[in-house]
Amino acid sequence: MKKIALLGSTGSIGQQVLDVIRAFPDKFEVMGLAGGENLELLRKQIMEFQPKMLYSLVKPDFNYQGQIFPMEEIAVHPEIDLVVVATSGKAGLSPALAAIRAGKTVALANKEVLVMAGEVVSQEANTHKAQILPLDSEHSAIWQCLQGEETEPQRLFLTASGGPFYNYSPAQLEKVTAEQALCHPVWMMGRKISIDSATLMNKGLEVIEAHWLFAIPWENIEILIHPQCIVHSMVEFADGSSKAQLSIADMRLPIQYTLSYPQRWPNPQLPHLDWSGIQTLTFKPVDYDRFPCLKLALDAGKSGGTYPAVLCAADEVAVELFLSGKIAFTDIARIVQGTLEKHHNISQPSLEEILAADSWAREYATSYPVSKARTSD
Amino acid sequence: MKKIALLGSTGSIGQQVLDVIRAFPDKFEVMGLAGGENLELLRKQIMEFQPKMLYSLVKPDFNYQGQIFPMEEIAVHPEIDLVVVATSGKAGLSPALAAIRAGKTVALANKEVLVMAGEVVSQEANTHKAQILPLDSEHSAIWQCLQGEETEPQRLFLTASGGPFYNYSPAQLEKVTAEQALCHPVWMMGRKISIDSATLMNKGLEVIEAHWLFAIPWENIEILIHPQCIVHSMVEFADGSSKAQLSIADMRLPIQYTLSYPQRWPNPQLPHLDWSGIQTLTFKPVDYDRFPCLKLALDAGKSGGTYPAVLCAADEVAVELFLSGKIAFTDIARIVQGTLEKHHNISQPSLEEILAADSWAREYATSYPVSKARTSD
Repeated sequence: MKKIALLGSTGSIGQQVLDVIRAFPDKFEVMGLAGGENLELLRKQIMEFQPKMLYSLVKPDFNYQGQIFPMEEIAVHPEIDLVVVATSGKAGLSPALAAIRAGKTVALANKEVLVMAGEVVSQEANTHKAQILPLDSEHSAIWQCLQGEETEPQRLFLTASGGPFYNYSPAQLEKVTAEQALCHPVWMMGRKISIDSATLMNKGLEVIEAHWLFAIPWENIEILIHPQCIVHSMVEFADGSSKAQLSIADMRLPIQYTLSYPQRWPNPQLPHLDWSGIQTLTFKPVDYDRFPCLKLALDAGKSGGTYPAVLCAADEVAVELFLSGKIAFTDIARIVQGTLEKHHNISQPSLEEILAADSWAREYATSYPVSKARTSD
Repeated sequence: MKKIALLGSTGSIGQQVLDVIRAFPDKFEVMGLAGGENLELLRKQIMEFQPKMLYSLVKPDFNYQGQIFPMEEIAVHPEIDLVVVATSGKAGLSPALAAIRAGKTVALANKEVLVMAGEVVSQEANTHKAQILPLDSEHSAIWQCLQGEETEPQRLFLTASGGPFYNYSPAQLEKVTAEQALCHPVWMMGRKISIDSATLMNKGLEVIEAHWLFAIPWENIEILIHPQCIVHSMVEFADGSSKAQLSIADMRLPIQYTLSYPQRWPNPQLPHLDWSGIQTLTFKPVDYDRFPCLKLALDAGKSGGTYPAVLCAADEVAVELFLSGKIAFTDIARIVQGTLEKHHNISQPSLEEILAADSWAREYATSYPVSKARTSD
């Protein structure tokens, strides 16, 4: 029995992690759960999985027999074999780092952990021989393609659906509503990542994550628009051979691979690709100029220091403002850009400096004069 | 230095094997060469690579300082690390078996070895712990996708260009010339395999080869028409995840992988895929009914015994008759079918019985009354 701590159990990924665990009752024991604001769901999860340890973002309104701990303590409990970090935004950083420093294997869905603090997290993982297993579909695809390969990959190709607005004009983008933006053409995802997919910020964050996860130079990571979302990413090797991982777009698949790794288990609930008809897969290079968030993310990643943390924080604030109807879709990039421009970068920052930059950026982005920025475009 | 015996050095694959070896002069020593009818080319190869052992199908008209041996003896020489079997038709069977019985690693391009004698060859490879490394692009693709996987694959998808006549009507196929059939839309190949690609016999032989190489049940091997020849085959795993290997269609790539395995080496002469424009990859299930040779091959493979050897022999004869202008393109299937129908199968045959079936089939196919078969269609 693999003993699991699941941080972020009430989110979209967290629920799907529990779906997979539910399909293999003999393989896993859920020892710790950490939930967000959905207390009703958290209560049900506790009833079903009976975890010994619990963290809840809001004070539970139900009776719980086990022990309540901060996420950092759940993550380092000696009996835990695998810490699944499925929180969102900066919430996962501190518990993920704690788990890594305790030498735990960490399944990472919360990409901000590596985006905000890639250098620190990578160094600590090396020092403490902690394994980071990617849970994102793109990074899982790359990881699957790298299995058994002795030689470093030469190029990574992250695929992107392009999101719901890839062919929209600038004028159309200005008028996009939250409701439209939440309708991703292929993936069913949480609210924050759905908006990040629509701005292509998400793909930029994925490039930063891939850079740190696979130790690949920036110039060797490329993005291909692949609207069918069948190929989840590709790896090219030195000899000119490439490998791609393909599947139906269903997050339970990369989740299960992380849980069953290095094995693969049959799971009748998981869909298989259907080749009985005609399948057409298209790929084209991404247009960096049309989606400013993508370029902002890549520039922040390459500049390093505290820039990526500022990027994440400003984006989190801006997405929230957009979802609550306070700004336009295209203002997200304006806020992120304005915040990055105002920031005084610190290179090779400590965790404290990263968190300070995050706090500064949240404050700055919240009161960013977006209407003024709009007129000066 | 890996010490190589190359059987079939003057053929299309043999020449490309030497191209790759030439690119890595510090990695390989060519210890043995076996050539076909092209003495002029064989002489040049000997001058360049100075092999200690030689076999020549026709008596050499040049001076050679080393030792002349049968292929079976070159293949088992104690110093040889890797035997590349790039002969064609049944020529490779006996030397490949000798190498396997000597526990050598065999890089196999001559697919008839496993088609004619899959059961015998697989058993001997197990007994003598000899590794068979696939050199065909499709089987290399599958092999690459299986690297690092602990779990058996669930389905294999062999891709097929469809050859030059995939959309021809039956009436058009009757009139196809050898010249047209030799023009494969994507791959540059030898004459025999080019015709086998046009009839789709080659894809049938590949299914049989894949069955034995990867120990996969017949019903789990599928064929997809993929005219772009970028994906060279795919593997689907139990969890619903698939992997594909992609590259430009260039045989030097799977050849180099076999030689460099388990590493991959940069080789500036090998092409890389270009994703800078729009790439469209299409896949559709093969139409088994339109190309009778494909169905004949699959039936012979599933029936087993001496049928696959008869299939290969009759096909070799029929392709030669077509290339020399004596029969029509569509007569190839007629001759193969007629020969298979006349054959008395022997199940679990010995090597001798396989070779006897081969001889019988060659004789029968050579004098097969094809014009009579045509009218009785």
